[in-house]
Amino acid sequence: MSDRLKSDSQTIVVNPLDRRLEASLRDIVEGKAKPPGSLGRIEDLAVRLGLIQGRLDPRLQRVVLFVFAGDHGLTEEGVSSYPAEVTSAMVTTFLAQKACVNAFARAVDIDVRVVDAGVATELPPHPRLIDAKVRKGTRNAAREPALTLHETEQALARGRELVGIAIDEGADAVALGEMGIGNTASSALLMHRLAPAPLESCVGRGAGHDAASLERKIAVLRRAAARSSASDPLEALCEFGGCEIAMMAGAMLGTAARQRPVVVDGFISTAAALVAIRMQPALIDYCIFSHRSAEQGHGILLKALGVEPLFDLGLRLGEGSGAALAIPFLRAAARLITDVANLSDVLAGTI
Amino acid sequence: MSDRLKSDSQTIVVNPLDRRLEASLRDIVEGKAKPPGSLGRIEDLAVRLGLIQGRLDPRLQRVVLFVFAGDHGLTEEGVSSYPAEVTSAMVTTFLAQKACVNAFARAVDIDVRVVDAGVATELPPHPRLIDAKVRKGTRNAAREPALTLHETEQALARGRELVGIAIDEGADAVALGEMGIGNTASSALLMHRLAPAPLESCVGRGAGHDAASLERKIAVLRRAAARSSASDPLEALCEFGGCEIAMMAGAMLGTAARQRPVVVDGFISTAAALVAIRMQPALIDYCIFSHRSAEQGHGILLKALGVEPLFDLGLRLGEGSGAALAIPFLRAAARLITDVANLSDVLAGTI
Repeated sequence: MSDRLKSDSQTIVVNPLDRRLEASLRDIVEGKAKPPGSLGRIEDLAVRLGLIQGRLDPRLQRVVLFVFAGDHGLTEEGVSSYPAEVTSAMVTTFLAQKACVNAFARAVDIDVRVVDAGVATELPPHPRLIDAKVRKGTRNAAREPALTLHETEQALARGRELVGIAIDEGADAVALGEMGIGNTASSALLMHRLAPAPLESCVGRGAGHDAASLERKIAVLRRAAARSSASDPLEALCEFGGCEIAMMAGAMLGTAARQRPVVVDGFISTAAALVAIRMQPALIDYCIFSHRSAEQGHGILLKALGVEPLFDLGLRLGEGSGAALAIPFLRAAARLITDVANLSDVLAGTI
Repeated sequence: MSDRLKSDSQTIVVNPLDRRLEASLRDIVEGKAKPPGSLGRIEDLAVRLGLIQGRLDPRLQRVVLFVFAGDHGLTEEGVSSYPAEVTSAMVTTFLAQKACVNAFARAVDIDVRVVDAGVATELPPHPRLIDAKVRKGTRNAAREPALTLHETEQALARGRELVGIAIDEGADAVALGEMGIGNTASSALLMHRLAPAPLESCVGRGAGHDAASLERKIAVLRRAAARSSASDPLEALCEFGGCEIAMMAGAMLGTAARQRPVVVDGFISTAAALVAIRMQPALIDYCIFSHRSAEQGHGILLKALGVEPLFDLGLRLGEGSGAALAIPFLRAAARLITDVANLSDVLAGTI
């Protein structure tokens, strides 16, 4: 790998969590009005939010959820059961605030921002659409690299810029979702190469496949994987795409670099996290893995990363839908620290 | 059991869900802008909310969480690792809005109502305290019935009345939590008798026990269980208490009778649900079991009821803390039906 290739993606530096606050945060949680340990993983989450934000009073009210949309040249090979046009149709639906992620975001009171990372068609301008298009869909990764190095670095940089704006505007955490027909295929290739894991374990039914079409999908992915032996995360991202996955990876790195929690959604979101973690290993401690998806590869990928998600409801939609549902857990964890009286005060009658 | 004993508790009638809407609700969910089945258990929840409320556009915005507080005569036997005074101290904390459940309720934007169901001490009047005290703590169930039939029926009726008021005021769902030093002991006895299940499997560490004190707790419960062979839910409630458990059971029956979802919390809340379900089996379909608690008996009890909770974060606090955290899942499910466009409209470009 050339030095040039290394340099840019590594200008986003994620520092390891500063563990000096850990004992104090743990003490604060222990001292709250409840039996020790009785809030289980919410207690661990509370401590981690404090560590990520570098404060003894973590704050988790305003959350921005990004939906990055992009198309995939690989769909030419028939790896998806939906036509590629569905990507742009869903972008329209996000903007009309009538998709599942919009409904869920309303249910948990968070902000949704829709980003054209690389949709194949020209989208009509819309006041809420963020145009960060890198190119009109990736190249067909079964035949050639999906993205050039320049395109990949552009995507990473734009992801970082967008979360930077959200954080400047007051976001306490950033959640990452996506839409892109064919992007479980890209994700499977990235997982295969970077987890690493056997290709079969990385490939699932995506948005809907029967056994025969699943076989076809695996055969296509095998061809794509055989084209390159890249095991560097940036190279793998160039090889397999996509624009939205690269932009998510940049967004994750940018969020962590600004000391905010990164709320990861399902399989594709976790594949983006994998890429970003391989670039900056410290990132993993900033990631909150929201749920285990019903997409086969997701459970295996989470295990490979050594992380346990917060819940499993059999979701496999993407869009950030699962990440949205995890936000209340984070808010509860932060409020455990900031809003709850100490047991000693309760017992002394001095609250 | 006398006829008198049977009659009153059965004046709250819970009708079986009217399944005529099920196919229509399922069709609505299937038609939404997402791959079929891709929202997993949220889809099932959406259908169930529609069935419970008897409408094709379920509504889940305003939620009232009741915290019923009561003391237990059994604590004389040393079954708890906290002194009984903690119950009233925690009621003060709930009213000051500084307990964990208040923090969580704020995180998910629901209303908390604090009810004195049977706290042992006289609580100072407070504008937010609902006085429904049946008696100052239950009798010691190791020696005599915890409650008289009249007291138990009073508790059931008051629980129903309180949720009736909340529903009249616009609650779309009711969540049930509790506070009562010693109430895992009552719950274990109720589970033992009504699940039914061997006593050892029903007894856990409660708010904090070591092995020796756990043995002591089991021995006390064995004495209490040996006093009576009651297997009727109302009789068992009289035998083992407590005021807050009986009031929760009444509240659950009352909520279901008014066609609203009943959001169940952890072990004690589920023990109350068990009692109420044994009274009115149709209730179970109105219950949303929020989480699996770390309290040993809870997982076994959920299995005995044949239900799968929504999440497992190792909580074992009570107060309704886990029920609160489940509310966003319910809201998301309702909004899936009411807020999301149909896939056919998305594909036709007519949203």
